[in-house]
Amino acid sequence: MSKNPDAFTRLINALKILPNVGPKSAQRMAYQLLQYRREEAQELVDALQNALKQIHHCRLCNTFCENELCDICADSSRDGKRLMIVHMPADVSNMETANCHDGLYFVLMGQVNPAQGMDISAIALDKLVERLQQSDVEEIIIATNFTAEGDATAYILAELFKTLPYKVSRLSRGIPLGGELEYVDAGTLAQAVYERRMVKE
Amino acid sequence: MSKNPDAFTRLINALKILPNVGPKSAQRMAYQLLQYRREEAQELVDALQNALKQIHHCRLCNTFCENELCDICADSSRDGKRLMIVHMPADVSNMETANCHDGLYFVLMGQVNPAQGMDISAIALDKLVERLQQSDVEEIIIATNFTAEGDATAYILAELFKTLPYKVSRLSRGIPLGGELEYVDAGTLAQAVYERRMVKE
Repeated sequence: MSKNPDAFTRLINALKILPNVGPKSAQRMAYQLLQYRREEAQELVDALQNALKQIHHCRLCNTFCENELCDICADSSRDGKRLMIVHMPADVSNMETANCHDGLYFVLMGQVNPAQGMDISAIALDKLVERLQQSDVEEIIIATNFTAEGDATAYILAELFKTLPYKVSRLSRGIPLGGELEYVDAGTLAQAVYERRMVKE
Repeated sequence: MSKNPDAFTRLINALKILPNVGPKSAQRMAYQLLQYRREEAQELVDALQNALKQIHHCRLCNTFCENELCDICADSSRDGKRLMIVHMPADVSNMETANCHDGLYFVLMGQVNPAQGMDISAIALDKLVERLQQSDVEEIIIATNFTAEGDATAYILAELFKTLPYKVSRLSRGIPLGGELEYVDAGTLAQAVYERRMVKE
């Protein structure tokens, strides 16, 4: 790399902060941006600069937003009695697309990592407690991922709510829609049997 | 996505111009940049803006550089008689790391795509011809990729040089260093047999 100009090397190093982008991908990205996509690259500069300046956290649900409240928290038609707790803003988007929850959200903006000492400062617990104190929430739906991190986060949340007067649930596990048993992995299959739903007793 | 703030959506759309980045990756990148890496994101803004302003093409070899000539073209100790033609700046870096070519380079900044009509405007042929007219080049080493695009580009170059008074060569194909025959793919193996090197006649 010693023969590359400094501005190019600097750009490559800056691109390496993106998730899953190593030195080779960063080099290829830098090449493509400068050779073929200068206009879009300028838009990327502007959009990122704008986002860094404008975006902060919603006062209530902690997701990214530009105003004091995000669109969902500001929508008075949503059911304030049910609060769904998710890992990150993308989960809110996905849930909204599924159109199955008309309550409010709380975005943890992180997960507890059991491989790194269960550090609960990774999730916005203080803000969640504060959020609950001034609310009329009755049911809390834990919608963390079904991964080691998501399970650890769900465990911490369940512990937190143990002595508090809320109904608490977690998303169900099982065969995905359209899933054929032949192709479902063994762990999911086992879970679907353990948590089988009674149809007739 | 309708519930995301505009600045966030704009950033996601801007990130999608990066190679191999789809909507999901872009969403994850935007989240990580804004949640965990704000300082580095600002450096990315600055580095990309700086690169867009500073970087243009070397007058001689067509690679990215900040001055009129790149470091290699400006280096009078390089052998001006041998010119290696490559696809992109990363190839120059790799070749320099291999430390096996002390001549000069010409960077095509593109490849001919046989699946899209062999459009030769994708490579900097005019600039190459111009470069050769004012040079004392004797041998041209075609170092394009061994892919459909690289082969097509090599073919176009070979046609171009057919009537010109240069020695022309192309990188050899064969078993990679440390390659065990058991694990080498059939195409490479066949090529290594066809292009076998005589040891004793």
